[in-house]
Amino acid sequence: MNRVGHLINGELSYDEAGRQAVYNPATGEAIRELLLAPEQTVNNAVAVAKEAFKGWRNQPAIKRARIMFEYKRLLEANRDKICALIGEEHGKIGHDAAGELQRGIENVEYACSAAELLKGEYSKNVGPSIDSWSEHQPLGVVAGITPFNFPAMVPLWMFPMALVCGNCFILKPSERDPSAALFIAQLLKEAGLPDGVMQVVQGGKSVVDTLLTNSDVEAVSFVGSTPIARYIYSKATENGKRCQALGGAKNHAIVMPDADIDNATNQLLGAAFGSSGERCMALSVAVTVGDDAADKLIDSLTTKMASLKVGAYSDNSNDYGPLISREHQMKVKDYIDSAEQDGANVLVDGRQVSVEGYPEGFFVGATLIDCVTTSMQSYQEEIFGPVLQIVRVTTMEEAMAIIDAHQYGNGTCIFTRDGEAARYFSDHIRVGMVGINVPLPVPVAYHSFGGWKQSLFGDLHAYGPDAVKFYTRRKTITQRWPSASVREGTSFSMPTL
Amino acid sequence: MNRVGHLINGELSYDEAGRQAVYNPATGEAIRELLLAPEQTVNNAVAVAKEAFKGWRNQPAIKRARIMFEYKRLLEANRDKICALIGEEHGKIGHDAAGELQRGIENVEYACSAAELLKGEYSKNVGPSIDSWSEHQPLGVVAGITPFNFPAMVPLWMFPMALVCGNCFILKPSERDPSAALFIAQLLKEAGLPDGVMQVVQGGKSVVDTLLTNSDVEAVSFVGSTPIARYIYSKATENGKRCQALGGAKNHAIVMPDADIDNATNQLLGAAFGSSGERCMALSVAVTVGDDAADKLIDSLTTKMASLKVGAYSDNSNDYGPLISREHQMKVKDYIDSAEQDGANVLVDGRQVSVEGYPEGFFVGATLIDCVTTSMQSYQEEIFGPVLQIVRVTTMEEAMAIIDAHQYGNGTCIFTRDGEAARYFSDHIRVGMVGINVPLPVPVAYHSFGGWKQSLFGDLHAYGPDAVKFYTRRKTITQRWPSASVREGTSFSMPTL
Amino acid sequence: MNRVGHLINGELSYDEAGRQAVYNPATGEAIRELLLAPEQTVNNAVAVAKEAFKGWRNQPAIKRARIMFEYKRLLEANRDKICALIGEEHGKIGHDAAGELQRGIENVEYACSAAELLKGEYSKNVGPSIDSWSEHQPLGVVAGITPFNFPAMVPLWMFPMALVCGNCFILKPSERDPSAALFIAQLLKEAGLPDGVMQVVQGGKSVVDTLLTNSDVEAVSFVGSTPIARYIYSKATENGKRCQALGGAKNHAIVMPDADIDNATNQLLGAAFGSSGERCMALSVAVTVGDDAADKLIDSLTTKMASLKVGAYSDNSNDYGPLISREHQMKVKDYIDSAEQDGANVLVDGRQVSVEGYPEGFFVGATLIDCVTTSMQSYQEEIFGPVLQIVRVTTMEEAMAIIDAHQYGNGTCIFTRDGEAARYFSDHIRVGMVGINVPLPVPVAYHSFGGWKQSLFGDLHAYGPDAVKFYTRRKTITQRWPSASVREGTSFSMPTL
Amino acid sequence: MNRVGHLINGELSYDEAGRQAVYNPATGEAIRELLLAPEQTVNNAVAVAKEAFKGWRNQPAIKRARIMFEYKRLLEANRDKICALIGEEHGKIGHDAAGELQRGIENVEYACSAAELLKGEYSKNVGPSIDSWSEHQPLGVVAGITPFNFPAMVPLWMFPMALVCGNCFILKPSERDPSAALFIAQLLKEAGLPDGVMQVVQGGKSVVDTLLTNSDVEAVSFVGSTPIARYIYSKATENGKRCQALGGAKNHAIVMPDADIDNATNQLLGAAFGSSGERCMALSVAVTVGDDAADKLIDSLTTKMASLKVGAYSDNSNDYGPLISREHQMKVKDYIDSAEQDGANVLVDGRQVSVEGYPEGFFVGATLIDCVTTSMQSYQEEIFGPVLQIVRVTTMEEAMAIIDAHQYGNGTCIFTRDGEAARYFSDHIRVGMVGINVPLPVPVAYHSFGGWKQSLFGDLHAYGPDAVKFYTRRKTITQRWPSASVREGTSFSMPTL
Repeated sequence: MNRVGHLINGELSYDEAGRQAVYNPATGEAIRELLLAPEQTVNNAVAVAKEAFKGWRNQPAIKRARIMFEYKRLLEANRDKICALIGEEHGKIGHDAAGELQRGIENVEYACSAAELLKGEYSKNVGPSIDSWSEHQPLGVVAGITPFNFPAMVPLWMFPMALVCGNCFILKPSERDPSAALFIAQLLKEAGLPDGVMQVVQGGKSVVDTLLTNSDVEAVSFVGSTPIARYIYSKATENGKRCQALGGAKNHAIVMPDADIDNATNQLLGAAFGSSGERCMALSVAVTVGDDAADKLIDSLTTKMASLKVGAYSDNSNDYGPLISREHQMKVKDYIDSAEQDGANVLVDGRQVSVEGYPEGFFVGATLIDCVTTSMQSYQEEIFGPVLQIVRVTTMEEAMAIIDAHQYGNGTCIFTRDGEAARYFSDHIRVGMVGINVPLPVPVAYHSFGGWKQSLFGDLHAYGPDAVKFYTRRKTITQRWPSASVREGTSFSMPTL
Repeated sequence: MNRVGHLINGELSYDEAGRQAVYNPATGEAIRELLLAPEQTVNNAVAVAKEAFKGWRNQPAIKRARIMFEYKRLLEANRDKICALIGEEHGKIGHDAAGELQRGIENVEYACSAAELLKGEYSKNVGPSIDSWSEHQPLGVVAGITPFNFPAMVPLWMFPMALVCGNCFILKPSERDPSAALFIAQLLKEAGLPDGVMQVVQGGKSVVDTLLTNSDVEAVSFVGSTPIARYIYSKATENGKRCQALGGAKNHAIVMPDADIDNATNQLLGAAFGSSGERCMALSVAVTVGDDAADKLIDSLTTKMASLKVGAYSDNSNDYGPLISREHQMKVKDYIDSAEQDGANVLVDGRQVSVEGYPEGFFVGATLIDCVTTSMQSYQEEIFGPVLQIVRVTTMEEAMAIIDAHQYGNGTCIFTRDGEAARYFSDHIRVGMVGINVPLPVPVAYHSFGGWKQSLFGDLHAYGPDAVKFYTRRKTITQRWPSASVREGTSFSMPTL
Repeated sequence: MNRVGHLINGELSYDEAGRQAVYNPATGEAIRELLLAPEQTVNNAVAVAKEAFKGWRNQPAIKRARIMFEYKRLLEANRDKICALIGEEHGKIGHDAAGELQRGIENVEYACSAAELLKGEYSKNVGPSIDSWSEHQPLGVVAGITPFNFPAMVPLWMFPMALVCGNCFILKPSERDPSAALFIAQLLKEAGLPDGVMQVVQGGKSVVDTLLTNSDVEAVSFVGSTPIARYIYSKATENGKRCQALGGAKNHAIVMPDADIDNATNQLLGAAFGSSGERCMALSVAVTVGDDAADKLIDSLTTKMASLKVGAYSDNSNDYGPLISREHQMKVKDYIDSAEQDGANVLVDGRQVSVEGYPEGFFVGATLIDCVTTSMQSYQEEIFGPVLQIVRVTTMEEAMAIIDAHQYGNGTCIFTRDGEAARYFSDHIRVGMVGINVPLPVPVAYHSFGGWKQSLFGDLHAYGPDAVKFYTRRKTITQRWPSASVREGTSFSMPTL
Repeated sequence: MNRVGHLINGELSYDEAGRQAVYNPATGEAIRELLLAPEQTVNNAVAVAKEAFKGWRNQPAIKRARIMFEYKRLLEANRDKICALIGEEHGKIGHDAAGELQRGIENVEYACSAAELLKGEYSKNVGPSIDSWSEHQPLGVVAGITPFNFPAMVPLWMFPMALVCGNCFILKPSERDPSAALFIAQLLKEAGLPDGVMQVVQGGKSVVDTLLTNSDVEAVSFVGSTPIARYIYSKATENGKRCQALGGAKNHAIVMPDADIDNATNQLLGAAFGSSGERCMALSVAVTVGDDAADKLIDSLTTKMASLKVGAYSDNSNDYGPLISREHQMKVKDYIDSAEQDGANVLVDGRQVSVEGYPEGFFVGATLIDCVTTSMQSYQEEIFGPVLQIVRVTTMEEAMAIIDAHQYGNGTCIFTRDGEAARYFSDHIRVGMVGINVPLPVPVAYHSFGGWKQSLFGDLHAYGPDAVKFYTRRKTITQRWPSASVREGTSFSMPTL
């Protein structure tokens, strides 16, 4: 069986402190073995990166960007291979993997504008013949810890921007689907990245802890569940590191009485069940304003859900695939059970789905649950499965109060034609990413991604303009050239320039 | 004796959980009593601010800015009163207090440009007929904890920007010199600030801890010593708050062989002894490159130090005043003792200084110490007194290595006429604020203030453009208006716009 | 009778090459005499400004801005006096003059952020150890030529930004109402502006031509009618000057079938008849989509127009005042005649309005004309009077085609509740300033003002961010400090850094 | 003989109103025939572009940028072919043509960041519940008229940015070397550009005049000599078009007494003689401060000039090639004659140079002239040949006064090690592009290119950030959604939001 190793100083490494199986979730079979990096390998990766930083920081930004121009081309040329790796280990259908990769490539495109993005601010004459300017200097060695649900995209949210800012990067991919990340990291060398600037180390909590305690790691970016995000943020900052840690979500869509129900239905189907709901921006709760809207929406949803197709990644006519693991499949079913026991109506039930030819796959069918209330466990927690719950309310204010009361504040959406409703909603709702008739309001790569409340720990959002701030440290320089012929007097006051 | 109370909901409050004396450091006498806020008073201040936030956040930025226009005028009109309060409790000479206040006012001026600073980024057509934009929304209730050494300026670094961004603010001033901060906070009401938007609570660690644990406090800004900065940063972030905590410093000036020694001397005198060295940007170490530069510099310094005048704040002909407390006075003398014991040469000795008419004042005279080495305690730690130490080296590279090895990285400076030396130094030195022939390179208010290494915990610097980032939370909105006549198909792939 | 003179080098000057009466348009009486500046006076004003520029350009931007902080205060303190001057000579009612002045002051507020606005872009390492940055340097002496309809606001659009950018300014106000401009220019000295930096020269075409041919005038800003705008733009650019010339307008509002008619009526009344329609952003055409919207709107308008009050500036209960001159009064009546002759329906007729106590005033009453078509002269030309014309169409596309076909493209507005209609309209309409339910979409001072098509000649809009570009010239500096020890090779190729 | 035609709607066109020979300047032979476009062909190109604009403007910026990503790759893949075309028709040596192309490609790279560059400014709550934002909308059809000396680079300064901003482009290349431009325009189609968005029309003044009078051409960019720049700017603006017209230059380098003479010599050789001095940024005058600097510099220059190699483009060991035409060769020799007659010392004389194997080539050898004064014709005018003139002065102020007095203000440079000299020079010199120890301070693609005085007509510089301003028109939208339940009152005052 294939081993999945590390990338250190431009070479694959097969150091191991243990092994862990990687599964194909459609078949339920172990297909590869992940090598868990020994502590020394991790520390060595950091040391190598620290050494490489000396030269890399001095490269003009445009030269670093040119590596990303070439990298974009290589990712596009290897699209099929990358999507296959994603599909095999994550289960995502081909068209969806291609969408993920495309979103990732868009971050590479943004990184290509590094020379523009890294401009500092220059002030002539902050005082008489005194000038001052700011520089965005790289941090040094930074690390990224990424989740299973977007094995290629989330790493691409991080390292392209980190690298063009002049940093060296250590990536620790998810243990469940590490191969896509390793492969795209290898492509960087082909794109011209000097050895040592980018490293990949495989493993679990012990690798994470080594990164969190190594004093040469200057910053950590994390995407995953909220408990782990909180742990990482707390450990990293305690150890003097800069950190941004993105956690869980429970994204609500408000369906207003004037919404175009057909459109809303189409959008909701994709946003709730695409990638089996294993997206931190998945829409998992529809809050309907008025029973009329609820009834029409349910009617339309149940009809269309009947023709959704679940199956293996390799058949592009499938709408979505399996969940990531047996444990997770069980957990999602448990949530549906609990909703039912709490009194909700399971209108469409995906618990017993079976996929022909894949008896051992980790599948759950698209599930629709009506009459969910905010006190139910299935409402309060993130399910991360193909389950759409309906909460019925009578006013928009009520809908907004429910959303604001939830612990998570990642994404949300309103379906309406009314300008005023849209504006009021987007202004006041306590959620970081807001859609108006856009069900998955993932910001484009030239904006930044981040939730509010328990969905993000840290000041700065991921990718986009905030990434420049996160991956650089401000240096402010104030300069005066004393005249050869003029002597200045001494001042003991606070200088006010 | 006068009591120093709190400002809650626009009114002075005299709640107390205890009292603490405030001293005039020139006379050594207690002149006021500080009331320590009870926990409930602190929590009430937060609750009042939270309520005030509802209306304040909806004010157009330009209306918030207009309060700052008026506030600037009021600060200027009350300049003498504020400087007297600073002088009485901190000991700073009038001209120096005026400099401090002016630097503070400059932050108010910057806050007047809030409407410009709060502009978000708007992207037309991120996808077909889909638009996206970002908003910088206020956080809610935020707190500031400020040090004794700039009793007016550091609060003014924080709350003007926090307020114009739409936040409500809780200020906890230093227990040693709280009156200036309280007074300038009161002026905000006169400038038109609605009650409840700005509060002041007095006290020590227990007030700080209440703020750090109150879940309605969204962010904390701190300036003080490194151990406390680390504590506050760690507590605040652990409790889910945004935090920036600025700590100690040890600022080095490199004196190059080609430096204009006369100019360097004048600059160093003010930068080392101004405000008795109780500035986080004080220059406390001169690293001379070559013995020739060292000897000339020492010659020039000792001559000019002979005419420095130390005394009480009220005599504007004094160059600098007392230290903040008896304890601190002793500590500074101890550092001089230790340098002497470690083998350094105390060339000018301020330990026995006496000021006529102020026998009990906390004075230490300007002190110059030669032949200091990096292993001495007096070198490794922040003295925060009027002590300038000389470290002799033979090359610029050696000088830079010493600076980079120090735990602190707040400010630094090079004296030279050479363009190449200046550029190499400012590029490579691992310090956040760099001066080229500018001894106190405090960034102007429209740039941002922040050190590196142990001098700052957090991602974002204080005041200036970074303050907008720190005091706001990014919200990204993506909007599409579906055509009434066109129906969209359903997509299960990751949408790529 | 009072003479209105010039402001040269900080002093009033009464040089004259002739005189011209200034009228009170409510009484029809001449109240002041304007002195027409001789050519030599104009050239002297420029020469004085050129000399003052040498010192002014070197002032730190923040110091220039501080004069504007004080200037804002002085304008506010003199609000009543300025409004009275506007009212006497222009006829604008007190509340409207106060609105005009406030809009002007907002430009002063924006100018207070000069230090932020003038920041250049700094790029470290554009090549190995090569840095590059841009500076926005002032032009030198620049001129502004302003119209009668906003005697205070339009000058304030120009000179505050021009001055804080480091330029010296020559203002030529309208001959019809020059006193407000002269007075506010005088206040600059009180605010601390050095003599010679701001000058006012009074007069007509010959003064304009002198400015346009004086080679020391680097740029000209103009607001007025399109034929003169075209003349000035062509002359100025031919003489190597930078120029922006804003001309006429014909602003249309689309009233959609779903519009809130009550709200639209209220907005239209103010936008069509406020300031007697003598605003380049006045809404003079309502394009109604569907007869139902038209009929309801007309019904509502005629009812409310019955209670509009026209009269002299001094009675704040009046809604609007006289036109600027006897000639213009006649011209506006002629346009109403022509519409009638062309077959339109004059529903409310203001031609015979009489104002008690002001028998000789230049009044025309609010006029509503229905069934106007695009072939009528009254439609094609700018009336600049209190005349609202209705054009009936059946679709939004038709309404947009009409607007796009008009020669002017200054402002426009749509009344609707529908997000899609608003977005489609604002995206596609060929007009520079677009309102969505905002009838006078004059951009705020921190955005920029400018129309399209024949409404503006030049690349850059007035005030706001574009003013920084217009009033400064880009200088780009590229810097390398050769190493003392390293010799570079010679390259004959185009250097690519 | 090969004909050089036009590119219309994605296809080559061979319409002709006449023909003109294209020469190989190394051999003096006509190698191609340029077809001069008939007026109707030009107007048709504009009409086709206008039609293509309708769809192109609606494309998301990122999709337009992606065409540039691919275009960059194609330009790099066709580097040899493009350089050969440049060499054949312009005479530029291979390494220099590669440098030119690389500089052009850098503008394509910058255009790839269109989505970032086109962001507008969004202001929430400019008034209560009123929002406002700006959009940078494309102009429509724009034209570029480019010079012979950079047949590929100058077109690439223009059309990549114009296209990604959403415009359609008409390029008229130089008649002398049109083939490179035509070829790179053709590559756009391969990169995915829709037909009709980019057109090339060949010809001379009559083609230019047709573009200048066609009312559907919204803007014109020009680079060439000052008299033609002035003509084009005047015509274009008179016809209501936006225009930027870059003209001639006379770039001075100050050599300070402390300059590193070896380095300065190496830099000057390339900057004065590279591309035979046919660059608008060529350094053609060295102003030496002090005779010592002059003598050392001349000594060093004459020594190194002895080994410069002139010849045909195809031999990469040559340093520079022929001039563009027989007429120009004669003109350059005449300038040298005139300098000699005016009393200057021709130290190295290139008038009689002969190149083996190329007896009919348009060669002039590198020429060095000492003791040039500002009254000489050879000093006052642009020579555009391989001629370096020395002007001797005794102070830096004198050197700066000479530069400021010259009619041109394109580029300039100072050689020094002194920070103060560099800062004073770059601050005060009246030249648009300033080098500090950088002889050809051509701004990188992410800054903007432009001279002052007679070197540029227009407000905005070429390429870089200014190109976004030049190729878009600002639209400002102000939006309010009236509450369904709240009625607003009518206001007749100037609304102040």
